[in-house]
Amino acid sequence: MGTRLSSSTLYAHLWGTPELAGVFDERAMLQSWLDILAALARAQAALGIVPGAAAEEITAAAKVDALDLDHVAEQTRLTSHSTLGLIRGLLNVLPADVREHVYVGATVQDVTDTWFGLVMREVGGIAWRDLRALEAALLDLARRHRTTVMAGRTHGQPGAPITFGLKVASWADEVRRHLQRLCEGRDRWVVGQLGGAVGALAFFGADALELRARFCAELGLADPGISWLTARDRIAEFGTTLALICGTLARIGTEVYELARPEIGELAEPASSGAVSSITMPHKRNPEASEHLDTLARLARSSAAVLVEGMVAGHERDGRAWKAEWIALPEVCQLTGVALRIALGLVDGLEVRPEAMAANVTRFGPGLASERVLAGLSARIGKHRAQQALHELLREDGAELAAGLVNRGLATAEQVRTWAGGPAVDAAAQMVDAVAARAATARAAEPREWP
Amino acid sequence: MGTRLSSSTLYAHLWGTPELAGVFDERAMLQSWLDILAALARAQAALGIVPGAAAEEITAAAKVDALDLDHVAEQTRLTSHSTLGLIRGLLNVLPADVREHVYVGATVQDVTDTWFGLVMREVGGIAWRDLRALEAALLDLARRHRTTVMAGRTHGQPGAPITFGLKVASWADEVRRHLQRLCEGRDRWVVGQLGGAVGALAFFGADALELRARFCAELGLADPGISWLTARDRIAEFGTTLALICGTLARIGTEVYELARPEIGELAEPASSGAVSSITMPHKRNPEASEHLDTLARLARSSAAVLVEGMVAGHERDGRAWKAEWIALPEVCQLTGVALRIALGLVDGLEVRPEAMAANVTRFGPGLASERVLAGLSARIGKHRAQQALHELLREDGAELAAGLVNRGLATAEQVRTWAGGPAVDAAAQMVDAVAARAATARAAEPREWP
Amino acid sequence: MGTRLSSSTLYAHLWGTPELAGVFDERAMLQSWLDILAALARAQAALGIVPGAAAEEITAAAKVDALDLDHVAEQTRLTSHSTLGLIRGLLNVLPADVREHVYVGATVQDVTDTWFGLVMREVGGIAWRDLRALEAALLDLARRHRTTVMAGRTHGQPGAPITFGLKVASWADEVRRHLQRLCEGRDRWVVGQLGGAVGALAFFGADALELRARFCAELGLADPGISWLTARDRIAEFGTTLALICGTLARIGTEVYELARPEIGELAEPASSGAVSSITMPHKRNPEASEHLDTLARLARSSAAVLVEGMVAGHERDGRAWKAEWIALPEVCQLTGVALRIALGLVDGLEVRPEAMAANVTRFGPGLASERVLAGLSARIGKHRAQQALHELLREDGAELAAGLVNRGLATAEQVRTWAGGPAVDAAAQMVDAVAARAATARAAEPREWP
Amino acid sequence: MGTRLSSSTLYAHLWGTPELAGVFDERAMLQSWLDILAALARAQAALGIVPGAAAEEITAAAKVDALDLDHVAEQTRLTSHSTLGLIRGLLNVLPADVREHVYVGATVQDVTDTWFGLVMREVGGIAWRDLRALEAALLDLARRHRTTVMAGRTHGQPGAPITFGLKVASWADEVRRHLQRLCEGRDRWVVGQLGGAVGALAFFGADALELRARFCAELGLADPGISWLTARDRIAEFGTTLALICGTLARIGTEVYELARPEIGELAEPASSGAVSSITMPHKRNPEASEHLDTLARLARSSAAVLVEGMVAGHERDGRAWKAEWIALPEVCQLTGVALRIALGLVDGLEVRPEAMAANVTRFGPGLASERVLAGLSARIGKHRAQQALHELLREDGAELAAGLVNRGLATAEQVRTWAGGPAVDAAAQMVDAVAARAATARAAEPREWP
Repeated sequence: MGTRLSSSTLYAHLWGTPELAGVFDERAMLQSWLDILAALARAQAALGIVPGAAAEEITAAAKVDALDLDHVAEQTRLTSHSTLGLIRGLLNVLPADVREHVYVGATVQDVTDTWFGLVMREVGGIAWRDLRALEAALLDLARRHRTTVMAGRTHGQPGAPITFGLKVASWADEVRRHLQRLCEGRDRWVVGQLGGAVGALAFFGADALELRARFCAELGLADPGISWLTARDRIAEFGTTLALICGTLARIGTEVYELARPEIGELAEPASSGAVSSITMPHKRNPEASEHLDTLARLARSSAAVLVEGMVAGHERDGRAWKAEWIALPEVCQLTGVALRIALGLVDGLEVRPEAMAANVTRFGPGLASERVLAGLSARIGKHRAQQALHELLREDGAELAAGLVNRGLATAEQVRTWAGGPAVDAAAQMVDAVAARAATARAAEPREWP
Repeated sequence: MGTRLSSSTLYAHLWGTPELAGVFDERAMLQSWLDILAALARAQAALGIVPGAAAEEITAAAKVDALDLDHVAEQTRLTSHSTLGLIRGLLNVLPADVREHVYVGATVQDVTDTWFGLVMREVGGIAWRDLRALEAALLDLARRHRTTVMAGRTHGQPGAPITFGLKVASWADEVRRHLQRLCEGRDRWVVGQLGGAVGALAFFGADALELRARFCAELGLADPGISWLTARDRIAEFGTTLALICGTLARIGTEVYELARPEIGELAEPASSGAVSSITMPHKRNPEASEHLDTLARLARSSAAVLVEGMVAGHERDGRAWKAEWIALPEVCQLTGVALRIALGLVDGLEVRPEAMAANVTRFGPGLASERVLAGLSARIGKHRAQQALHELLREDGAELAAGLVNRGLATAEQVRTWAGGPAVDAAAQMVDAVAARAATARAAEPREWP
Repeated sequence: MGTRLSSSTLYAHLWGTPELAGVFDERAMLQSWLDILAALARAQAALGIVPGAAAEEITAAAKVDALDLDHVAEQTRLTSHSTLGLIRGLLNVLPADVREHVYVGATVQDVTDTWFGLVMREVGGIAWRDLRALEAALLDLARRHRTTVMAGRTHGQPGAPITFGLKVASWADEVRRHLQRLCEGRDRWVVGQLGGAVGALAFFGADALELRARFCAELGLADPGISWLTARDRIAEFGTTLALICGTLARIGTEVYELARPEIGELAEPASSGAVSSITMPHKRNPEASEHLDTLARLARSSAAVLVEGMVAGHERDGRAWKAEWIALPEVCQLTGVALRIALGLVDGLEVRPEAMAANVTRFGPGLASERVLAGLSARIGKHRAQQALHELLREDGAELAAGLVNRGLATAEQVRTWAGGPAVDAAAQMVDAVAARAATARAAEPREWP
Repeated sequence: MGTRLSSSTLYAHLWGTPELAGVFDERAMLQSWLDILAALARAQAALGIVPGAAAEEITAAAKVDALDLDHVAEQTRLTSHSTLGLIRGLLNVLPADVREHVYVGATVQDVTDTWFGLVMREVGGIAWRDLRALEAALLDLARRHRTTVMAGRTHGQPGAPITFGLKVASWADEVRRHLQRLCEGRDRWVVGQLGGAVGALAFFGADALELRARFCAELGLADPGISWLTARDRIAEFGTTLALICGTLARIGTEVYELARPEIGELAEPASSGAVSSITMPHKRNPEASEHLDTLARLARSSAAVLVEGMVAGHERDGRAWKAEWIALPEVCQLTGVALRIALGLVDGLEVRPEAMAANVTRFGPGLASERVLAGLSARIGKHRAQQALHELLREDGAELAAGLVNRGLATAEQVRTWAGGPAVDAAAQMVDAVAARAATARAAEPREWP
């Protein structure tokens, strides 16, 4: 159950995914830690630091299901030490002669930072997969609506026409940049840690660097080259990258939220059969997924900021910054994971209403064509006179722009019609194509699994 | 178990207290929600909106232990509605004729915001109690060390002498200001919410305001006078107040952390028998409590900032801001709760080493007395000349100030001795007394329980 | 000119006010600092620490216009000392025999923290005045629209009716709570600082506490009782209070921004004759003031968070936290000041369009009355059956609720009409009255100037 | 002068550099904006949109020194439009027949976002240059101290030995990762913007995309492919990258700050001849540069967080998020710029005191060698017995480890000596070499100017 809503029976699904629970729930986390201890033993066995048979026994025994977690928890509290409880739990299920060979020369941070390396590999891979799926869905949506005309809005006000495809292509393009970021950052993030007491690895004598290389290789992580006990930029960068991803998803969600207002009515969230928006207002259909994307982004930003603050860490280990990461990194990972799933569902089932989009363009009258009319009139009477004329006419009487221009002798009715009917969205459609083309190139060149 | 470390078996004790788990764990939260539903039914019965017998049956049945929480969770996910699962669970344990009278005219936010009112009452009360205990401990410590001379440090450098009592009195004074804040804010925080669909309470017709008053009274909460569905300043202020409290505790913790450096050695954390600071460095005694206070403050600030951001809420309900509160408010409450317990333990058992304090004052030589020497020399040769002389002497040769002044004919050895030996800490001791006196007055005038 | 947009010729008006420039621009700040030095000299003269004549000469000479600021700046950079440049500048305009009596025994922080006390007095007073004016304007607006029916909106979707007065009263009520906060916090904020080297005031011997009391009194500030060199909760609380105020103003601004969408059209910003919303889209009328309130709140929150972080300050002076305040406190003050002016202008000239509000209520059809219909139908067939019936009907065919209920034999057309026409907004209007009444009581009891 | 300390005569040098003032002060910014207008005219001339002669005249006249900035400011305020004042100022210095050809079809955001592209190019280039210089200085320092033994410290407590070179190499390695980030992000950041009214570029008809390409090329910026009016991830990422850089510099600064405590005395800031640390405490030598690095990082993080929040932008332009960038992006750029200069000065002149480092290792006695003794004793009696023995011995009597082990018959004096004297820092030195080697490879392969 737990004391956090995010761990609750009723609401956990809003703050994480089952897939990420497979990374972060306590048993999964402890199993990863045990795997790390086993990998360490094997790497040490390869160098003769511990007997090979001991490493095999540790590997076989290091299963969370075999441990008495109540005892582990009790010993954790008793010793005020973050991993000693787990070690004692593991020792209990090992033969006496093997016990000496568990966790030799390593520290808490070696375990937890190496786990962070594994976590970043898992979560980065999930983000890579889901962002690629989201990109594909967005590109498809953009293509289908490359010429679906709608009002572009600035400062909350309908301005000139765009196409819905252009809007969606802008999202897809932003997602593509996140894929670039994930690709570029991977080698900085997916690393192990083996620093021993203070990062100097003195315990292991001449074997130290070779041991670290083997330890990392056992786990499929890169060797960092140097201990990074208080060099937390990796964690800060990874968490921030996730927060940026959540920012994009919240931008999409907020756009749906606003355009799904009944007064606008251009988009609607996928309908879900059992969902009840409101008990007291049974007619409501709330944009809950869209809204939740913004909620998740707020919380993700907040946790990422904790990680950035944590970079200012002291000496060779600094619990102040580091333990805050224990909360903040898993948090931002899980929030991002659920945000990605929600965004995928939202985009996949999004209801697009071209007729409402068209109606809003018409409803807000000649104004929406004013950029084209301005262009035409500028060519005829000069830009500043044209601006002045339109500014006055539209202020006075938004609905009768054509008549106003004709009455003032600034243009013929035919001219205004031509200008207003001009190719307002050709460039928009071309930009959709440009985004699609470069995404296609990138997708063809990259693996489906996080490289 | 859950997917958050803060809800884990092994580490939950670092991120919350059992007492606060009694407020925030899922069963406790759901019981509070059920209590709110029962209070609503009773208030409605008093006005004839529902039958009195129904209200009694609801009150009797609304027990979390009676519900099938798996079914509640399933219905929550199915309906995508935050309380409908719980309502359905409750209906299942009620006679058919009573079911109509559950949750009449109220909404999710009425339940959860009213719960926030109860939460703020509980957590505010705990903070009040623990801050008063902390103040008492600090005042006692300050009094005992009102003339214990130690180096005052600025920019990390020993400067002139202070007393340890002065330092502690500054903490106590800061704690006293938090008690003021808690006292002042209470009436803004401990309120109920009954707004119905959109805050206009239309469902209840002419009974609306009377119903809200009775509903709040049933729960011991104040009537807010007007719906506050998107007026979130109460929550933002409460969360921020807790973050400020954590800031003070982190200031204390950081001070202990720094002064417990063996190179300084003036303070030490209470020793704990079973604790193991470091496996690889068995001689270590880490300031874990002190350090953790800073960790908690980082996270508390982060959650409080989410609450402040949430004030910019739209229309009559805004899930974006509001659902972020569901995570952030319980978080900051629990972090503060555990920080208070840790701080109390730290202060209660703090080892103070006056001899080390004295030694450091001596070790950093005449410099530490330089403020008094400067005062004396200023009176003799003018302030600017005195500054210049000391500045030069101390740069050249920190150890031989007296000789230097004598050699330069600026003072006699006797004079320097007098100045350096002057009443450097009298004012410090008087300030300890002043803080103690005004705290005593305040404490005598205020209740032990949060007023 | 400066390197910050907020100090630019073109844009400074967006990020501050002339009134606050009178507090914060460099000359004003330096004059305040000189005033503080003069007050110190007078307080010292009263105790015989410096000659009375010297204090008079310092008071007379300590005028920023008399100083060579280029020299002051040069000496500031040369000495890397924050006030020594200014002191040297002041010495240059004093007779030789007076020079010894400037800035005796005080430090940079005594000057700048005492200035913060003065700043908080000024800015708190401005906030008090402008918030009271805003409250008055909001109460007037709420009263005028106490029964102006409009759609209440939740999750961005029109729900049930409210009145515009209710919405505005909620703003007024939030403003009133800020007035309470300002009132309560004043004594914590409007204090002086005189701590000397390390807060122990050793320089002044037995006169220390008396000197501090006189020094504070000279400036109209309260005596803090104890040095607060690293007790920064005052600053953090003040800055946060301003950020909360900005949050409320941004809530108002965002509401106007959304309701001023042409598709909704219920509110409009005051028109301004010379304003040009858009060159390329001359028909636009952008809600620039509303929008800017949100921009200001983002930045204010950000600066306030720096102040909260600064509470974890080390030892007796900690430049890391403290110098960040030098940027962040003036910033949040100026942002709040301009936000208040903008909000006042926005509320004063706000265009309210009751006809559009009414049209939107009608346009979204029976749904908006569904809370009342639900209440009526619940009384007739039971709440859960009523919910189910409405839920189905409104999902199928939002426009024909009455017919649907009649067709299903659940109600007569007359009944539906009665329910839908019921007193949906009586309670809303009563809440407006309640807010107005308690504001009136508070206003009558409080001074026009910050108490 | 301005109303911000960061723009003040006395203190601007603490919050920016002259080089960055050349980018950000008002005249420099306006000149860049004029350059952008001129580039637009030339690109339009190439496509026949405006006459070639007009483009030439605009290019020649668009000089900030030629404009009447008071008039520009007045018109800015009058029109409430961000660039119209500047346009009017420019028109005033142009012949009548050219005026029509200024700023054709573009909007404020085209100017300011394109300027952001230029800003990111400039500031990214400065960061690249200074980080490379810093890396070189750090590598040199690390090499010189690759075997300088000092105490590694965890949780603020001396633990086992490291070398100073290892510590410095960890900084250098972190700097290298920032260089990677700058390298990777460049193509995302150094782009222009030409979106017209709503990003669809309708004004320009069939020439639109070709015009944007030419416009960007004129300024040496990349063509973004699609309008990015509300796709603010570029800005958020750039600002965050700078905040991460500041985090590293603050880590370095904080380390110096702590190790420069006289009680530790292992490092000292470069002495500066004119600097006065403290007037009242003339013996002090404050670590002001180190301290200021932390101050700058706090503020940089705060501004970067505003940029990340700004990613959730609405529709085709959102002033709420965008105008906050106008403050926050220049801020984080200037803070980073000055932090880099300070860090360079700090590292270049850093006083390293190997003898103090050695003394502290000795002073904290056998404990510091405990990792090696533990390794040796583990090999002899098993790891868990060894841990237990050391744990008991060191708790009892930190000073007599060797004797204790001998007395207990656990080892001979000779053995303890051997273990304690073992190769504690060989791996540390090797890690210094590894970092240096990979940096050398990277440096050889990369240009001195930002690629």
